[in-house]
Amino acid sequence: MGYTSYVDLIKELISGKKIISTSMKKEVDRVQAAIEASLSGSCCAIISSGDPGIYAMAGLVFEICKKRSIQVIKPESGLEKEGSICLEVVPGIPAVASGASLLGAPLTHDFACISLSDLLTPWDLIEKRIEHAAIADFVIVLFNPKSKKRAWQLNKAQDIILKYRNDDTPVGLVKNAMRKKQSVLTISLKDLHKADVDMLTTVFIGSSVSEKYLDYMYTPRGYSGKYDIGSVK
Amino acid sequence: MGYTSYVDLIKELISGKKIISTSMKKEVDRVQAAIEASLSGSCCAIISSGDPGIYAMAGLVFEICKKRSIQVIKPESGLEKEGSICLEVVPGIPAVASGASLLGAPLTHDFACISLSDLLTPWDLIEKRIEHAAIADFVIVLFNPKSKKRAWQLNKAQDIILKYRNDDTPVGLVKNAMRKKQSVLTISLKDLHKADVDMLTTVFIGSSVSEKYLDYMYTPRGYSGKYDIGSVK
Repeated sequence: MGYTSYVDLIKELISGKKIISTSMKKEVDRVQAAIEASLSGSCCAIISSGDPGIYAMAGLVFEICKKRSIQVIKPESGLEKEGSICLEVVPGIPAVASGASLLGAPLTHDFACISLSDLLTPWDLIEKRIEHAAIADFVIVLFNPKSKKRAWQLNKAQDIILKYRNDDTPVGLVKNAMRKKQSVLTISLKDLHKADVDMLTTVFIGSSVSEKYLDYMYTPRGYSGKYDIGSVK
Repeated sequence: MGYTSYVDLIKELISGKKIISTSMKKEVDRVQAAIEASLSGSCCAIISSGDPGIYAMAGLVFEICKKRSIQVIKPESGLEKEGSICLEVVPGIPAVASGASLLGAPLTHDFACISLSDLLTPWDLIEKRIEHAAIADFVIVLFNPKSKKRAWQLNKAQDIILKYRNDDTPVGLVKNAMRKKQSVLTISLKDLHKADVDMLTTVFIGSSVSEKYLDYMYTPRGYSGKYDIGSVK
């Protein structure tokens, strides 16, 4: 059960299984249907891309189960009974990790992840998070940076962060990480508004110590301040 | 090549290979040795636990290569030459994702990751990051929360966050995620100072909207504000 595009990605793994796929923005219907299937005794998987617990569907399963007072039970407990759901959240490699690996190593020090989608979150709160993440010098990872209907949010985020970071702060853009049509690019913060960014792009904005080296971007963890790392023993 | 404990975890995968393992805090020596091996034509892997790019060794490889002006080349480019290193960062499932999956779904909305280790980072900066992450209502994930030599930092973090969050904010503690001696526990923020926390524990501190349900912890993404998720169609 999943969003059509994600189900298509694993077609070969699920041949012979019953497949329910729905279009985007039908998340609630999809999870309700999965819960019903599970309550009626079927074994059912909800597919997300990346890690299902990072900006994905796992939270909604718990949100609905709590609302409906459905008992949720861990598989290893062996306590499953009528009216309960045995649930396992299977972790994956989130976009924040796969994207970082393609850029170099932007996340080897503290970082904050923020979704720019204001469909379910008030923009004021998103802006507050960007501002404080910038003040505290986190590497900032932006999810859902831009869509056809949400065109201005990324520019606003850029303006806020530029109050606290240099123009030439490295920014990494990763689109379709580890998939067809993958693209990986590093630019400077001052050029972010001109970049080709869409819903499938993850944006990595460096902290004040993040560096560019060749086509890579990384965030030192502080070894060079403490050790002599330039010379070979 | 890696820290002894991590090399031990994959013993079966690397039988027959040359293995160089070193004790903790020898990160620079380890990475220098790997770079030397690679420069002299060997194919060499540096092992980290979780994802090598999240609080792990990938950053140090770039840090040293830049300092030593060693060319780093992507495997797919096919441009490798004398004096250069062909480097691939292989992403993994970071502790933040595996830990979250065991707790439920604490990271389905914006979050910040902070290491409490002040060995390489000034404590003032760590404190500033905790404070701003708390003000901006991020779910806060703490790495390296406590060791024998660093006993007070976690209590200080708790005090700061309690200025902005309720006493009963859910906190998840995951130790040895997906390994032997795994332990998973949810407590309230007011009890964090009494909890059994060590260097191998990842601490997940809920935002103001994170909830506990049964033994689980999750962060709603906002569906219940927009949709009627309590009733079944």
